[in-house]
Amino acid sequence: MPKRVVAEFLGTFWLVFAGCGSAVLAAGFLTPAGVHLGIGFLGVALAFGLSVMTMAYAVGHVSGGHFNPAVTLGLAAAGRLPWRDAPAYIATQVVAGAAGAGVLYVIAAGRPGFDATESGFATNGYGSHSPGGYSLVASLVTEIVLTAVFLFVILGATDTRAPRGFAPIAIGLSLTLIHLVSIPVTNTSVNPARSIGPALFAGSGPLGQLWLFIVAPIAGGLIAGFTYAALLGQNENASPLELATAA
Amino acid sequence: MPKRVVAEFLGTFWLVFAGCGSAVLAAGFLTPAGVHLGIGFLGVALAFGLSVMTMAYAVGHVSGGHFNPAVTLGLAAAGRLPWRDAPAYIATQVVAGAAGAGVLYVIAAGRPGFDATESGFATNGYGSHSPGGYSLVASLVTEIVLTAVFLFVILGATDTRAPRGFAPIAIGLSLTLIHLVSIPVTNTSVNPARSIGPALFAGSGPLGQLWLFIVAPIAGGLIAGFTYAALLGQNENASPLELATAA
Amino acid sequence: MPKRVVAEFLGTFWLVFAGCGSAVLAAGFLTPAGVHLGIGFLGVALAFGLSVMTMAYAVGHVSGGHFNPAVTLGLAAAGRLPWRDAPAYIATQVVAGAAGAGVLYVIAAGRPGFDATESGFATNGYGSHSPGGYSLVASLVTEIVLTAVFLFVILGATDTRAPRGFAPIAIGLSLTLIHLVSIPVTNTSVNPARSIGPALFAGSGPLGQLWLFIVAPIAGGLIAGFTYAALLGQNENASPLELATAA
Amino acid sequence: MPKRVVAEFLGTFWLVFAGCGSAVLAAGFLTPAGVHLGIGFLGVALAFGLSVMTMAYAVGHVSGGHFNPAVTLGLAAAGRLPWRDAPAYIATQVVAGAAGAGVLYVIAAGRPGFDATESGFATNGYGSHSPGGYSLVASLVTEIVLTAVFLFVILGATDTRAPRGFAPIAIGLSLTLIHLVSIPVTNTSVNPARSIGPALFAGSGPLGQLWLFIVAPIAGGLIAGFTYAALLGQNENASPLELATAA
Repeated sequence: MPKRVVAEFLGTFWLVFAGCGSAVLAAGFLTPAGVHLGIGFLGVALAFGLSVMTMAYAVGHVSGGHFNPAVTLGLAAAGRLPWRDAPAYIATQVVAGAAGAGVLYVIAAGRPGFDATESGFATNGYGSHSPGGYSLVASLVTEIVLTAVFLFVILGATDTRAPRGFAPIAIGLSLTLIHLVSIPVTNTSVNPARSIGPALFAGSGPLGQLWLFIVAPIAGGLIAGFTYAALLGQNENASPLELATAA
Repeated sequence: MPKRVVAEFLGTFWLVFAGCGSAVLAAGFLTPAGVHLGIGFLGVALAFGLSVMTMAYAVGHVSGGHFNPAVTLGLAAAGRLPWRDAPAYIATQVVAGAAGAGVLYVIAAGRPGFDATESGFATNGYGSHSPGGYSLVASLVTEIVLTAVFLFVILGATDTRAPRGFAPIAIGLSLTLIHLVSIPVTNTSVNPARSIGPALFAGSGPLGQLWLFIVAPIAGGLIAGFTYAALLGQNENASPLELATAA
Repeated sequence: MPKRVVAEFLGTFWLVFAGCGSAVLAAGFLTPAGVHLGIGFLGVALAFGLSVMTMAYAVGHVSGGHFNPAVTLGLAAAGRLPWRDAPAYIATQVVAGAAGAGVLYVIAAGRPGFDATESGFATNGYGSHSPGGYSLVASLVTEIVLTAVFLFVILGATDTRAPRGFAPIAIGLSLTLIHLVSIPVTNTSVNPARSIGPALFAGSGPLGQLWLFIVAPIAGGLIAGFTYAALLGQNENASPLELATAA
Repeated sequence: MPKRVVAEFLGTFWLVFAGCGSAVLAAGFLTPAGVHLGIGFLGVALAFGLSVMTMAYAVGHVSGGHFNPAVTLGLAAAGRLPWRDAPAYIATQVVAGAAGAGVLYVIAAGRPGFDATESGFATNGYGSHSPGGYSLVASLVTEIVLTAVFLFVILGATDTRAPRGFAPIAIGLSLTLIHLVSIPVTNTSVNPARSIGPALFAGSGPLGQLWLFIVAPIAGGLIAGFTYAALLGQNENASPLELATAA
């Protein structure tokens, strides 16, 4: 387990530090002449996806590359991870997310005039804390549906029938796609560890809404995890006996 | 067939929900200070391509990953799918497209002031409904040519001579490229299921133009499907007899 | 040879139609409210690269996927293609580039007020025809150096020592990178067929500067082709006899 | 060694010429009507990443594809390169970075009104030379942390347990991600050769701050290199004796 903990720490640290870092440091950037050179929501969407893609190639062979409690629970629900391993994975992810946000805070505070609460610090939110003012219901639907599809992509792309080695591309870029859709709605979570980290640094508003970004991604992940085998798994009608006979 | 139906449903749902969702929710986004952080046509083009790429890795091994009636018909024309399987594929795709647009509608309606008809809701159109005011003829040529090339890429990248495992990258990113060219012309269809879904929610204008986005993509797909083998297939100089002898 | 001609036609058509099409139709796009949703030079750079990447996967197994006279000549210089095959490749590429520009013209003319000469129609240029006003010398250096590096990437990524199947990614994205650097200088050629096609539709200015975008890319391609083996090839000091002994 | 020197020269030349070139020539570009078509920080981030990805596929099989003294030293610290090979690699990289900046200077000077010092010429900086005015401490933390993670990705993605052939994608796109986060902080170095080249052409300011962009990347690279095996290497609980027995 120790090296899997290191791998999950490193990956989740990278996801929160670089994903949220791109949003806090680089999303909007005006030159003195007023030309906008910032990376916008498109750049932030790429950043989150690339953080998962790159670390899945780097340490996926050590821990499986979850970096997300909703992914860990969804994989457990699908029978891909023993339930007893989930607590250590999730505890590591939450601590790593806080560490990533902390290092980001140190850097962001190096700019004169920085205020984490005022800037939002890449926290997730709904209603008055939604970037586009989307309602609680819209935010809840968004996070549940997107996390469920995320898990379907993860489970399908790592299925033994899928081509070898490409899963990090599919998984990372599905996270990019998720952000391309939903940054204006909730600032995009689909990952409780990603939501908890920055919320520790941005005042009481984001903390008060944190429940949604824990409950909804986990609900979406479990829905996908428990239904994948029935909906899309192999040998759909085969009983163990039939499988044994077929072998 | 049941799991192939699930796979086509999931993939087409994702294509319409995430592709059109990126356009409806995130293409234009101004901060209160007037800085544009939206993803623009470039982000929308990436979203459509990534929806196909990610789902082709996730469920392509189940159904082949069409997600598009024009693709299904083009593959049937090329002899890659039995014609008798096409109706179930196409019916599933159309239903899934409507479902994706429906969930998107629920989320979009969570923003105060949202009006699907006024916003266009990512529907396709020509003439007065073309984003850039392009004519009917220009729109027809665009959709036929782009769908035909799309099918040539699909047929070529899944040819047994092509490198294994890379087809979802080639196919997904060709859909991105198609959008990079043609969003200003027709808002880009090349896929009747993608056109029908949003049109159900955006008033009578898009419905009245829907015929073009059913006819033109299917025409383009069939042209490519019927000509691929003659133009680019294997064993170019071999007669059926020679092939039988070689087997 | 016939199917190789079809493959080169299709790939070069796609490169010019979609690459130049993204520039002509989608680079700049303002909403009625004045928000810029166009894809910019970044989107155009992606479009050119993806046109090559997708067609290299689709038809690279048929013709090798050159789509560019400078590439064909560079590969011949490196001993990868018989010189006698080059004329048919190059003639096909030039015709296909003109066809791609022609279809694009039909579509672009479907927008009220379109004027190919005034818009530039994605032609290449230097001096007063350079997007950023770069000089003839700067443009010449740019085109020679970038085409030479392009060929080094092509020759290296298709070397037998490189990993299998990834060459279209490396080659396509190196063309994207070339555009990220040089669109402001010359509108980026590195490909005579890409330069000739649009120049046929945009008045006398681009035609008068066409020589540079034929001479410079070919010079760069030949430099790389003739030096690759000596600089980076395998078995650098081995004579045929030594190779025979080592086997 | 000679061909490895050529490979490192070519790759580092490409990284500095194309990466910095995208920033100098294309980051900001306004049409006469004031529409911004430039590639922004997102395009520059892609350019740096693609320079490494493309050259790693092209010449990685010759030299390993470092293109960066901090990578060379980190790999040596991790036992992946003999220390005695490092000086030739590093000398080549520094010379190639200067050559890349020199050719870029020739092209940039072809635009009327160009002034390397005034434009910054893509040099790195902190404090008053930081694009966003970030402090020395923030810049130091940024460069150390990002280079360390970069090396973890490199070491992990080239680990024998990682999937074959994908390392250039993971490594190149992690460099893109690093830029997505940190261009506003230091203009992003994580590579002393990339910092030294442009600084030779942009006056005394960048030269006076060059020490940080030599010290911090090397520190980050060495930290990761020396700790990778202990943190994430194979055979975690095996003593040397057990390994010997297992062999």
